[in-house]
Amino acid sequence: MKAFIVHAHPEPNSFTAAMKQLAVDTLRAAGHDVRVSDLYAMKFNPVASGADFRKRSNNDYLVYALEQRHADGTNTLAGDIAGEIEKVVWADLIIFSFPVFWFSVPAIMKGWIDRVLISGRFYGGTRFYDQGGLKGKRALLALTLGGQEHMFEANGIHGPLEDMLRPLLRGTLGYVGFDVLPPFVAWHVPYISAEARQEILDKYRRYLQALHEQRPLRFPSLSDFDSALRPLAMPVNTHRFLKE
Amino acid sequence: MKAFIVHAHPEPNSFTAAMKQLAVDTLRAAGHDVRVSDLYAMKFNPVASGADFRKRSNNDYLVYALEQRHADGTNTLAGDIAGEIEKVVWADLIIFSFPVFWFSVPAIMKGWIDRVLISGRFYGGTRFYDQGGLKGKRALLALTLGGQEHMFEANGIHGPLEDMLRPLLRGTLGYVGFDVLPPFVAWHVPYISAEARQEILDKYRRYLQALHEQRPLRFPSLSDFDSALRPLAMPVNTHRFLKE
Repeated sequence: MKAFIVHAHPEPNSFTAAMKQLAVDTLRAAGHDVRVSDLYAMKFNPVASGADFRKRSNNDYLVYALEQRHADGTNTLAGDIAGEIEKVVWADLIIFSFPVFWFSVPAIMKGWIDRVLISGRFYGGTRFYDQGGLKGKRALLALTLGGQEHMFEANGIHGPLEDMLRPLLRGTLGYVGFDVLPPFVAWHVPYISAEARQEILDKYRRYLQALHEQRPLRFPSLSDFDSALRPLAMPVNTHRFLKE
Repeated sequence: MKAFIVHAHPEPNSFTAAMKQLAVDTLRAAGHDVRVSDLYAMKFNPVASGADFRKRSNNDYLVYALEQRHADGTNTLAGDIAGEIEKVVWADLIIFSFPVFWFSVPAIMKGWIDRVLISGRFYGGTRFYDQGGLKGKRALLALTLGGQEHMFEANGIHGPLEDMLRPLLRGTLGYVGFDVLPPFVAWHVPYISAEARQEILDKYRRYLQALHEQRPLRFPSLSDFDSALRPLAMPVNTHRFLKE
């Protein structure tokens, strides 16, 4: 298997970085190929702009998605974007390794999503969800957060974490066609002991060693909708998307 | 009223920018004070890092939230962050003006959230949701997107837009205590006629002129939870949060 880890944390010695390194070591020890994009170390530019295209189809008015398609077709995407796309295409599995900032990814990783998951190649028209361009690949969020598990129970103060992560799990990874594995969550990290952190690392190692046992989350299928994307039958349960 | 518009779009002549300008004009015509942060024009840096603090409390290991508190207390936050905080504190209403990128804000705006909504001043401990530091102020998402309204109905292919926007509406704006108004949504923008765009602008003007009639979304109240943030009574409906 070929695994690509996209990692973002502003502290190189963070626990999140330790999880990333454990993933590299565990997957390599199991015989897999692993590549890493450490976005802070790369000083990755997260800001989508006209500068992302070496030759624009329209220099007067920027429609970002149209320029993505044009630049991909004419091989004129900015080098940093093209380099990341090459790794995405290469990989069978992509792991997003990050600390939760505002129930989402840090901006530097949001910018990776904005700039690298290009229109045309990875989605477009009715090519999304189970018809997305990255169909057949798997994706995993491996995240750390300050909150505790009980805050994210059904009746917890924030409600289910998967609901907070919906635009990532479903609206991004599911949208481009990935089989999205259940997130690996390291809870309450800033407040726990070294022993508790070691337990999380051990649990993460076991999770990675048994990845094939994980069932992907369920998302809508385009086959349940007509060409205008109106539901063919009622009711379609599009709200819940956890594995059943 | 004092209104602060945080705007982000990579194209200065976009429809989203026209909406922003209409908001400036409409609010000023009604006698309100308006300030704008145009993040692309400002070349706003979205990447949270140790460079955000002119004097660190710990130079060896970065805990971002702790350094935010320290730097706010010692007046050593980076100038761009301090400038934005001053506007947040000044404002009675904050409007976030943006095109939806991946069911969320563009990375440059996510970085504004990551860096400007600092720990300590705006949230911390059990100071969040109805106890958040920005209690008493209102916030509004004014967004444009390519999708059509029927794709976001209860049985639509993406499910309710408010569910996709949950980490923003609830996890960010609600979290820091804002009264969060129902989002103003400009649907299907890249595909519609000039007349249809004008209708959206007219509707947005009327929305802004009648802001006081809008009832905020509902989020959990800390009073329903104990000091460990466990629910005091069952069931607490934490999942749905639209106005009822």
